[in-house]
Amino acid sequence: MTRSTLRTKFRIAVIGGSVADEQSLQAAFRIGELIAEKGGILICGGLGGVMEAASRGAKHKGGLTVGILPGSSYKEANPYIDLALATGLGHTRNSLVALNADVIIAIDGRYGTLSEIALGKIYGKPVIGLNTWKITGIEIARTPEEAVELAWSKLK
Amino acid sequence: MTRSTLRTKFRIAVIGGSVADEQSLQAAFRIGELIAEKGGILICGGLGGVMEAASRGAKHKGGLTVGILPGSSYKEANPYIDLALATGLGHTRNSLVALNADVIIAIDGRYGTLSEIALGKIYGKPVIGLNTWKITGIEIARTPEEAVELAWSKLK
Amino acid sequence: MTRSTLRTKFRIAVIGGSVADEQSLQAAFRIGELIAEKGGILICGGLGGVMEAASRGAKHKGGLTVGILPGSSYKEANPYIDLALATGLGHTRNSLVALNADVIIAIDGRYGTLSEIALGKIYGKPVIGLNTWKITGIEIARTPEEAVELAWSKLK
Amino acid sequence: MTRSTLRTKFRIAVIGGSVADEQSLQAAFRIGELIAEKGGILICGGLGGVMEAASRGAKHKGGLTVGILPGSSYKEANPYIDLALATGLGHTRNSLVALNADVIIAIDGRYGTLSEIALGKIYGKPVIGLNTWKITGIEIARTPEEAVELAWSKLK
Repeated sequence: MTRSTLRTKFRIAVIGGSVADEQSLQAAFRIGELIAEKGGILICGGLGGVMEAASRGAKHKGGLTVGILPGSSYKEANPYIDLALATGLGHTRNSLVALNADVIIAIDGRYGTLSEIALGKIYGKPVIGLNTWKITGIEIARTPEEAVELAWSKLK
Repeated sequence: MTRSTLRTKFRIAVIGGSVADEQSLQAAFRIGELIAEKGGILICGGLGGVMEAASRGAKHKGGLTVGILPGSSYKEANPYIDLALATGLGHTRNSLVALNADVIIAIDGRYGTLSEIALGKIYGKPVIGLNTWKITGIEIARTPEEAVELAWSKLK
Repeated sequence: MTRSTLRTKFRIAVIGGSVADEQSLQAAFRIGELIAEKGGILICGGLGGVMEAASRGAKHKGGLTVGILPGSSYKEANPYIDLALATGLGHTRNSLVALNADVIIAIDGRYGTLSEIALGKIYGKPVIGLNTWKITGIEIARTPEEAVELAWSKLK
Repeated sequence: MTRSTLRTKFRIAVIGGSVADEQSLQAAFRIGELIAEKGGILICGGLGGVMEAASRGAKHKGGLTVGILPGSSYKEANPYIDLALATGLGHTRNSLVALNADVIIAIDGRYGTLSEIALGKIYGKPVIGLNTWKITGIEIARTPEEAVELAWSKLK
């Protein structure tokens, strides 16, 4: 009986708006691909926009995707989520997204994303930003590749 | 790009005390094995006792195990949890265990288990009981095999 | 500058169904009155049925009432709640009702009430039952007067 | 039997760090005083620093103070809190502070404050900032008096 191989994988949260422009969606998709290629688990809020694009990217490369949902039905996740967790907590679930990552990549986004950035910093998680809020304590990346590289540099 | 095969799997929560007698632990282990053999995902609270025994059983048969933890570090899960979700909600997380199952099997247990049974019923989840609280609305099983059979009979 | 006089008051949660029969509503009203007469703060789930009847009773005698709501608007409280707290947590808020009482009185009720009884016991709160679930660890009262008397006997 | 007079009062959340410099503490104290003088209810996180200074100011003028605590004991509130609500949710409780205000005044603060600002905006609450995060959507005040005046201008 061996321990789970999933346990040793890094967890990268990709956060961003449920509505986003084409550039952000493409960046999210590419970041999802790169996370999967590097063997990471993608954590996200499980809904549309940046969350769905990143999940789709990760699944495109055979990765594992986890969605932490605001609603009370785990069936509300986007179709690229492998394991959806319903919370029934509404926006309060943002805290759980931040809590379950080793590192967070923020793409674009509005106040929901800002709350997850702030909660991530409260929990001591490194936060990488790509075209998102300019907040002290976020490290800025200019490309999806740089974002994922920076993210991995934080993992140990 | 195909959708996740995990999405079509049934989810069975096994709930019970973090401390339990040998008979309950053996039942939990056997139930974990049976859930894995039938292709279900085991959902539990991620800690010791009945939760760990069921997880160990599921991993023994190559199943997938999810632990929804009270604490704020996902590393606190028992070693047989594939995917641990930290909540930082304390006992309030019991609600999320109930919410994320298609059906619940309760083994032994004290007030934590009782709260999960009650929350499961609030959420309309079928609850199967094995040597646990006698509560109206729980269906009683006498063996691990019968518990899993009853659980599957509720799934559609 | 003196400290708040509210801080020294006992807090009694009255829990029970949002739909209840006339006898339970009358008992809840009377218990609310007695809590107010004894100078306690009434804690409840803030909605209808037993919660509203108890709040109405407490206000009838000039007491202070607190409602801990499942929804995200504090304006959803019944009209007899002085201070409504919105949680946006759905049924998960039951945990917060139990957490904020020094002692709990359960009247009638279904699974929501059962979850609050169980959570109360997890948190080490004394639970008094009036025509409610028969659960080990609940002390049974036969009348509103006896329920409140028993509740006060637990406070120190 | 009259309805509660508390129900018609405005609720102003004062958010800010549990550690703060003297200038921020004095501003928080003054804001607390002004909220009480205007008949508002002060909502805060119930702990030290800005939260305690604002509560102390409000009590100095005979106001009502509510503290929504991260821990699971309502006795952990600062001594100027009239009504403390324990949540046991840790930092996740920040969401409930934002949810329970009609308007939010942010003073100084770090990531906890930033998360409450963001959650406040998610919930559509006006946010007034005094020497705090520069975030789009916050209205800036230069003095405690201006902050409270701006806050009241948002209430209807």
